[in-house]
Amino acid sequence: MIIKIKPGASQGDIDYVIGRAHSLGLDTHISQDDGQTLISLLGDIQTLTPTVFRGLRGVAQILPLRSPFRLVSRDFQAERSVVVVGGVPIGGEQIAVIAGPCAVESQQQLLTTARTVKEAGARILRGGAFKPRTSPYSFRGMGEEGLKLLAAAREETGLPIVTEVMAPEHVPLVSRYADMLQIGARNMQNFELLDAAGKSQKPVLLKRGMMATLEELLFSAEYILSHGNHHVVLCERGIRTFEPYSRNTLDITAVPILQGLTHLPVIVDPSHATGKADLVAAVSRAAVAVGADGLIIEVHPEPERALSDGPQSLTPQRFAALMVEARRVAPAVGRTI
Amino acid sequence: MIIKIKPGASQGDIDYVIGRAHSLGLDTHISQDDGQTLISLLGDIQTLTPTVFRGLRGVAQILPLRSPFRLVSRDFQAERSVVVVGGVPIGGEQIAVIAGPCAVESQQQLLTTARTVKEAGARILRGGAFKPRTSPYSFRGMGEEGLKLLAAAREETGLPIVTEVMAPEHVPLVSRYADMLQIGARNMQNFELLDAAGKSQKPVLLKRGMMATLEELLFSAEYILSHGNHHVVLCERGIRTFEPYSRNTLDITAVPILQGLTHLPVIVDPSHATGKADLVAAVSRAAVAVGADGLIIEVHPEPERALSDGPQSLTPQRFAALMVEARRVAPAVGRTI
Amino acid sequence: MIIKIKPGASQGDIDYVIGRAHSLGLDTHISQDDGQTLISLLGDIQTLTPTVFRGLRGVAQILPLRSPFRLVSRDFQAERSVVVVGGVPIGGEQIAVIAGPCAVESQQQLLTTARTVKEAGARILRGGAFKPRTSPYSFRGMGEEGLKLLAAAREETGLPIVTEVMAPEHVPLVSRYADMLQIGARNMQNFELLDAAGKSQKPVLLKRGMMATLEELLFSAEYILSHGNHHVVLCERGIRTFEPYSRNTLDITAVPILQGLTHLPVIVDPSHATGKADLVAAVSRAAVAVGADGLIIEVHPEPERALSDGPQSLTPQRFAALMVEARRVAPAVGRTI
Amino acid sequence: MIIKIKPGASQGDIDYVIGRAHSLGLDTHISQDDGQTLISLLGDIQTLTPTVFRGLRGVAQILPLRSPFRLVSRDFQAERSVVVVGGVPIGGEQIAVIAGPCAVESQQQLLTTARTVKEAGARILRGGAFKPRTSPYSFRGMGEEGLKLLAAAREETGLPIVTEVMAPEHVPLVSRYADMLQIGARNMQNFELLDAAGKSQKPVLLKRGMMATLEELLFSAEYILSHGNHHVVLCERGIRTFEPYSRNTLDITAVPILQGLTHLPVIVDPSHATGKADLVAAVSRAAVAVGADGLIIEVHPEPERALSDGPQSLTPQRFAALMVEARRVAPAVGRTI
Repeated sequence: MIIKIKPGASQGDIDYVIGRAHSLGLDTHISQDDGQTLISLLGDIQTLTPTVFRGLRGVAQILPLRSPFRLVSRDFQAERSVVVVGGVPIGGEQIAVIAGPCAVESQQQLLTTARTVKEAGARILRGGAFKPRTSPYSFRGMGEEGLKLLAAAREETGLPIVTEVMAPEHVPLVSRYADMLQIGARNMQNFELLDAAGKSQKPVLLKRGMMATLEELLFSAEYILSHGNHHVVLCERGIRTFEPYSRNTLDITAVPILQGLTHLPVIVDPSHATGKADLVAAVSRAAVAVGADGLIIEVHPEPERALSDGPQSLTPQRFAALMVEARRVAPAVGRTI
Repeated sequence: MIIKIKPGASQGDIDYVIGRAHSLGLDTHISQDDGQTLISLLGDIQTLTPTVFRGLRGVAQILPLRSPFRLVSRDFQAERSVVVVGGVPIGGEQIAVIAGPCAVESQQQLLTTARTVKEAGARILRGGAFKPRTSPYSFRGMGEEGLKLLAAAREETGLPIVTEVMAPEHVPLVSRYADMLQIGARNMQNFELLDAAGKSQKPVLLKRGMMATLEELLFSAEYILSHGNHHVVLCERGIRTFEPYSRNTLDITAVPILQGLTHLPVIVDPSHATGKADLVAAVSRAAVAVGADGLIIEVHPEPERALSDGPQSLTPQRFAALMVEARRVAPAVGRTI
Repeated sequence: MIIKIKPGASQGDIDYVIGRAHSLGLDTHISQDDGQTLISLLGDIQTLTPTVFRGLRGVAQILPLRSPFRLVSRDFQAERSVVVVGGVPIGGEQIAVIAGPCAVESQQQLLTTARTVKEAGARILRGGAFKPRTSPYSFRGMGEEGLKLLAAAREETGLPIVTEVMAPEHVPLVSRYADMLQIGARNMQNFELLDAAGKSQKPVLLKRGMMATLEELLFSAEYILSHGNHHVVLCERGIRTFEPYSRNTLDITAVPILQGLTHLPVIVDPSHATGKADLVAAVSRAAVAVGADGLIIEVHPEPERALSDGPQSLTPQRFAALMVEARRVAPAVGRTI
Repeated sequence: MIIKIKPGASQGDIDYVIGRAHSLGLDTHISQDDGQTLISLLGDIQTLTPTVFRGLRGVAQILPLRSPFRLVSRDFQAERSVVVVGGVPIGGEQIAVIAGPCAVESQQQLLTTARTVKEAGARILRGGAFKPRTSPYSFRGMGEEGLKLLAAAREETGLPIVTEVMAPEHVPLVSRYADMLQIGARNMQNFELLDAAGKSQKPVLLKRGMMATLEELLFSAEYILSHGNHHVVLCERGIRTFEPYSRNTLDITAVPILQGLTHLPVIVDPSHATGKADLVAAVSRAAVAVGADGLIIEVHPEPERALSDGPQSLTPQRFAALMVEARRVAPAVGRTI
């Protein structure tokens, strides 16, 4: 439920409304929309009737929320958000392409990739320093050493960097180096991590869990926004189904569904969705055509030697070709890349 | 396994190869490719070694098949097939758009729809006369009366028609009226129906079952081709997953995967995939961008009064707008609509 | 909606109620329950209000249906049904075990199996003469020859037989030989086949589709009952999920859910559910404990030579051991085997 | 790969083998099995050939591992493990029943439940103090206050306690109060948490993710064991499928599959698997019959007032009835409860 405050209401009037909410066990979230004060009521409001607030001095209007989520919903904010990452906007007219290796492996590997993806038109660099791996015996990333290499690559190329964070206590460390924190699919419902990312105020790239409904994804974003961090970008990266040909099943329809439900930008990860380099370009074209606000693509100078995700990584040459194809599609949806 | 026959081999040589195959319990399928005779061995060939045929007079080359399917595979035919339906090609440079109501309900409803979708650029008319319905108490279609209305609509508009057939014994009846037989998702593994469609020589639109793997889809197509009917178009129409927002989950990646495995044309059904009229246009753009050879879309003059599938049906106006959007995307993949 | 007729109402009163229903486009189904006449209204009754029938002479009570299905529901018939197959009851105190080979392959194979499963306690013999196969090149069954072998095995052992029917036009043929018609998972929504089985009055074993919800299974059963054939047994045989270790995922919870929704007996197929002989006994114990009314199990004298489903077939020895285990569990749920 | 050391080999011989492994980039894990020293090689051993270690002094035998996991596999330890939780064994002849409320809500609620479940035969008390919730606005648990109430309930009833831990930094806090750490389904691949639990040496109850394969579950357990903590119990709690009637789909077959692959005990959670109190007893019987080593069941004195999971919580009376039913089944599988 959202309470619109009358223009010109006194601070005392506003405080009274807030106090009433608190006395009912609800939290409040205050925001400004076009010069108007909105109080969003948070907590168990299922049984709450608007009459409690009706007629209070200062209350202009009481808006029920159509969706179960609040701050992420288009009820709360009708215009689409633009999230700025190190100067690069995600969610605007230009489709943002994020590219880079699955894992940071060496300075040489990272710099080569960064230079070539920049040249091809990528605007943000990705690379994992902390890697979630199914087996404890797989390569789990270079840790802080990898973060330093990422920062050095930014220094040289000017590309802002996004990298994964896997534990609440790593958020300060990763935030020191990264322009954007990635929360991976396996951690989409790691609520302590969501809380920590929410408190950090860094832009967050939140990937849909492979088993998560869109409603669950939006609730996880709500965790981050509820701490005051509104810089969240959602990422569809494929869900788990019975079909074995592709690594996951890209839910392309998720993009327009999410854009109808939330004001947050929505990007697509064709690399994890397909798991096969041969399929990445076609699916990237589809993502642009469906209206995605960005792409995140794995690129490796030598995919066959990658320490992780080699089969789905593109060579720089193939990535450049993909960018050409994607650029042809963008004008059809009124965008550029 | 495919045996390439030497140019100039005698019929006796060929017959000997065929006889040897039969003596091993295998069926054979003979085809011509660019003037060369190919004998495809069908049956349980898992344990068969090529040595049995090596050195026979007339045998030029023995080709193992990489895929478990045969006649549908690109091993068997490298070039993409074009299936012609009442003069309209599916699989060529022009993307074929099939449109019309879910069910034929009346002459008025059908003709109105046919005229408006034709005007907007649809090239084939769809409409169900025999309807598969979950409940026995739902409207199950007009039967032959509906087929007659479809034929009359073709008469007036010139659009060829595609309509569903649900039982082997209906194949002759439906074939008398239709230009293309549709086998629906629920009947994708109705093997007796596949056999009957294979024997009919009519073009067949084979829809993927909602929980069928791509391999199973290709095997079902193989049933049809194995009877000598090569006029098969595959249709991705969404699979069943845990996600409730959309009616099904469109597996957009299925399009390039199938196009890599088979020479048959592949189209997309955004109406059943999404189940919601609001999502159909965005998903249609994605289907064109990913490389689909066609679209099949439900259109109804008054969706809110439709006897089935109303929520996913477009008005003629929205369909016309969709065509405008799809036409903008097509050139990006070197196609027209 | 069900209309209870007053005791002692005249036939004219009853006919008037029926006529009113027909005038509203509804079908009617009349039954007797404990000496009382019930008229079940079938068709599109979503928008129907009971007031139309209230106050008519002869109407004792109007019962809304809680479930979307009608004849299969426990609203319609509260007591659990017992379906009798060649003298063997399914649904009563004794758990019915159906056993036999996946496919009938030879007289020798079938008779050996029949004798041994009977000795171990099976009460019905299974065996496929018409086999649904993913690939057109796999063994598709012996056809009528297989039916004759089944009939001969019944002659010798006294076991009634259940065998699959795959097409509406085969129903008369299969009915001549079989005591029970099986409709397989792939044909659960082959509505023409359901209609044909409904008209036949033979007991029907209806298997849940690997992609079907329980509601869809009940609607498919409703097709059969709506033609007056109430002799339907439902079978849970595993659904398709992402888990690759087992062939399918047995939905054990489906048994108590179905038994709460319908009066029809519910059995379990541990062979198809697991796909591995090693797992069949454990899962059979679970099925008995959960309350299943029967089991259907694949047994083959030489599983490694079976023409289909070898990996999940038990040897007669293992089947006998399974029966010992299952018999130990049965008393815990007040049943015998 | 596992290297069996010769009886009587010197420490120098053993160190040499270990040094060779380290020089190849592998980690080693040393264990004793029946007086014999085993060195398990951990790391990327896919390409490793046994010849590297063959012939070294001290090496008795080199055992390839059939499964991709190591310490959890039955290759590594053939006998089934028994995990002891506050004196109560899980994995032995007696089936361990864990019961209690979803969330700790008050001293009164917890103590009432603890006393009644103990009386009915539960041997371990469950209760959540830190609750993973889809929405940030739901009740997220009492935190440390809840842990104190759990410890007090143990004090009074003697039941050991298991409770969920959601973040690596909470492991020390929760370990101070709990006898067993629960890692919930949403955190099954929270690898930092698995590491922290592995280092703690507390018994761990690891729940299968709702869309995790059994292989992934075993790899997550491997994370814990790889830190030297072998006290791990696995829990099947239902997976996410398309079927809406039950909250999740219990994969009952997972129990015998896991017991074939791993020596770790396997229990079942019928409450989360079904989501409905009406179904819990039937599914519990099935779990006992299939061979589960334990059950974990939600019990609440007033389910309709529970702050979470009310619909699936049993009253103490229904729980007592369930125990009676489960006890009848146990002897059929040679167990007691």
